[in-house]
Amino acid sequence: MFSVTVRDHMMVAHSFVGDVFGPAQRLHGATYVVDATFRGTALDADNIVVDIGRATELLREVLGELTYRNLDEMPEFAGVNTSTEMLAKFVADRLAARVRDGSLGDGGRRLAAIAVTLHESHVASAAYERGL
Amino acid sequence: MFSVTVRDHMMVAHSFVGDVFGPAQRLHGATYVVDATFRGTALDADNIVVDIGRATELLREVLGELTYRNLDEMPEFAGVNTSTEMLAKFVADRLAARVRDGSLGDGGRRLAAIAVTLHESHVASAAYERGL
Amino acid sequence: MFSVTVRDHMMVAHSFVGDVFGPAQRLHGATYVVDATFRGTALDADNIVVDIGRATELLREVLGELTYRNLDEMPEFAGVNTSTEMLAKFVADRLAARVRDGSLGDGGRRLAAIAVTLHESHVASAAYERGL
Amino acid sequence: MFSVTVRDHMMVAHSFVGDVFGPAQRLHGATYVVDATFRGTALDADNIVVDIGRATELLREVLGELTYRNLDEMPEFAGVNTSTEMLAKFVADRLAARVRDGSLGDGGRRLAAIAVTLHESHVASAAYERGL
Amino acid sequence: MFSVTVRDHMMVAHSFVGDVFGPAQRLHGATYVVDATFRGTALDADNIVVDIGRATELLREVLGELTYRNLDEMPEFAGVNTSTEMLAKFVADRLAARVRDGSLGDGGRRLAAIAVTLHESHVASAAYERGL
Amino acid sequence: MFSVTVRDHMMVAHSFVGDVFGPAQRLHGATYVVDATFRGTALDADNIVVDIGRATELLREVLGELTYRNLDEMPEFAGVNTSTEMLAKFVADRLAARVRDGSLGDGGRRLAAIAVTLHESHVASAAYERGL
Repeated sequence: MFSVTVRDHMMVAHSFVGDVFGPAQRLHGATYVVDATFRGTALDADNIVVDIGRATELLREVLGELTYRNLDEMPEFAGVNTSTEMLAKFVADRLAARVRDGSLGDGGRRLAAIAVTLHESHVASAAYERGL
Repeated sequence: MFSVTVRDHMMVAHSFVGDVFGPAQRLHGATYVVDATFRGTALDADNIVVDIGRATELLREVLGELTYRNLDEMPEFAGVNTSTEMLAKFVADRLAARVRDGSLGDGGRRLAAIAVTLHESHVASAAYERGL
Repeated sequence: MFSVTVRDHMMVAHSFVGDVFGPAQRLHGATYVVDATFRGTALDADNIVVDIGRATELLREVLGELTYRNLDEMPEFAGVNTSTEMLAKFVADRLAARVRDGSLGDGGRRLAAIAVTLHESHVASAAYERGL
Repeated sequence: MFSVTVRDHMMVAHSFVGDVFGPAQRLHGATYVVDATFRGTALDADNIVVDIGRATELLREVLGELTYRNLDEMPEFAGVNTSTEMLAKFVADRLAARVRDGSLGDGGRRLAAIAVTLHESHVASAAYERGL
Repeated sequence: MFSVTVRDHMMVAHSFVGDVFGPAQRLHGATYVVDATFRGTALDADNIVVDIGRATELLREVLGELTYRNLDEMPEFAGVNTSTEMLAKFVADRLAARVRDGSLGDGGRRLAAIAVTLHESHVASAAYERGL
Repeated sequence: MFSVTVRDHMMVAHSFVGDVFGPAQRLHGATYVVDATFRGTALDADNIVVDIGRATELLREVLGELTYRNLDEMPEFAGVNTSTEMLAKFVADRLAARVRDGSLGDGGRRLAAIAVTLHESHVASAAYERGL
């Protein structure tokens, strides 16, 4: 199995509902350093899984919908705890939709899976992996 | 599949028995930077796999049994080479026992697997993954 | 010259005033991974500049005043752009005040300088260094 | 499942054929920071998967065939795009051949899989994993 | 003293002349992960040293002149060993010229110094610092 | 000012004397990831400060005197707390002696300063800088 991983980041504000979150129930924020991994069982005619440049642009586009925003005010997240793991799934699902629409070219359509890891600090991260 | 990873470290002394270890047969030491990953197939009512704060505390407790110690003198490790991979399993098994005991709450009981990576330097690490 | 550096982090929300900030004028947030460096020209009787454990606790206390907060609502920052460089100075000044008050013991009083670096992502940071 | 990972690097020149590569069609170069992971289901009599020292030497030997070279001029790569993912497979296959030849001792023959990740920058990597 | 640091990278081919370089006399390549640091003694009216976004763009422009190229074929480097330290100076001097031309706005003209670090691998880097 | 930095590591056991050290008074250990920086005001005829390969070998030789040892049993450290900052000075002084002896060639004799940083974990380090 092959994979290609590209990294970018986003900076958001949000708050959580639920006693388990302690002080994180207050409005605060986070930088998420995001790793997006694209997996495939074979290389294409150019000898790649996906073009690293295109994958980087695609990740930037998806994170561009979220960065420099207060997630508490976005309709997509009404009534939802925007936890690190939930956001990892959100980014992975958006990437998957774009891949199916051909944003990574025909090669993208042969991908087997996408994994997204959000590093919220130097000591904590969350990830989500899904098939395509 | 979702996962949450938290990082902490421990600083121990130990020695190895066996020609393969060369100079590491002498009493020496290591800082292990430890990543503990908790995997689950679904999010709970709070939209998380495990609370990152609780997971961090649990890892600190488990590493607290080992840090600032000479492993050669601990009864648990009598006659045992405390290799990086063996210690990864030790930490994973301790975390698993705590999770089953409810240390991460009811949500912890729905976890599917635990993976532990011990980074012994900037160029070497070992890991162990197990089901729950 | 000797130095000791310890690392911790804080997660805050804030917004900026000024066209130069572009989309960062919106309420957003950041994880700041913070390195605090304590410099001294000589070691004390214990052969250290400052105790790493105490320095870690001191940094955690200072960051504890800021983390999980919306900086826009804190009286200390009314009318102030809480830029990464400004926050580096804020943390350094708080650390310096504590050091002068004896929070790091008598040894702390012999320190020559404090430097604070705030990493706001994997690709950007700001720092401030001052004498004691 | 256990694993051991060791890191080294190589510095090569090469160029790509294909419009998708844009400016990377010109002769350029890369440092690949390489992580080689050896997986096994059980520990040997010494309580290890593979000796970290031996694994490090083996990786250095395999990368030694490539480093400080222009890949465009190597017969092995004639007519081939030496993409990061292709090179990950090349290194993994070479490591696998050496393991089967006994370069990691008898323990190596019990390994289940090898994974190789090539980091081409702080924001991009590719990987290949295969069985043994 | 304040500073702001931004990171980007470039991928180049080159070779060296001189016995000291050993195998690096052959045509090979490198990824340079580049940190550019801008130092200033005071913050401007917006409470910043330089805008991180603008500084990032400026660094990208300067590295854009070098990336995906064979440095051996560039007139600027004829008869010159493009060592890591020499390239650090080249990038710092280009950044300094742009800052003096106003590329970072009027605030940039108040900068005191620029430092550039080129990381050529996970275990080696070179840097150059100069006044403005 | 130019500089070149190379990285290696050592793994040692030791204990500390003094209440300030708390649990670190017990025999324990550490991996020190060591950065050695060589500073010079000018480049030599080869356009370098020091050869990165030679500097790497020199650092390995100096760390080779300490790695895989119990520092408590070494005569050099009798009655001495081998703190991270003290060890940074020890390594810097050893490097300086070798540089003066010509281990880095004639170019080494033109160096202005040496700085050594010991990272004892992902969250703590100590450093020492001295002239030549």
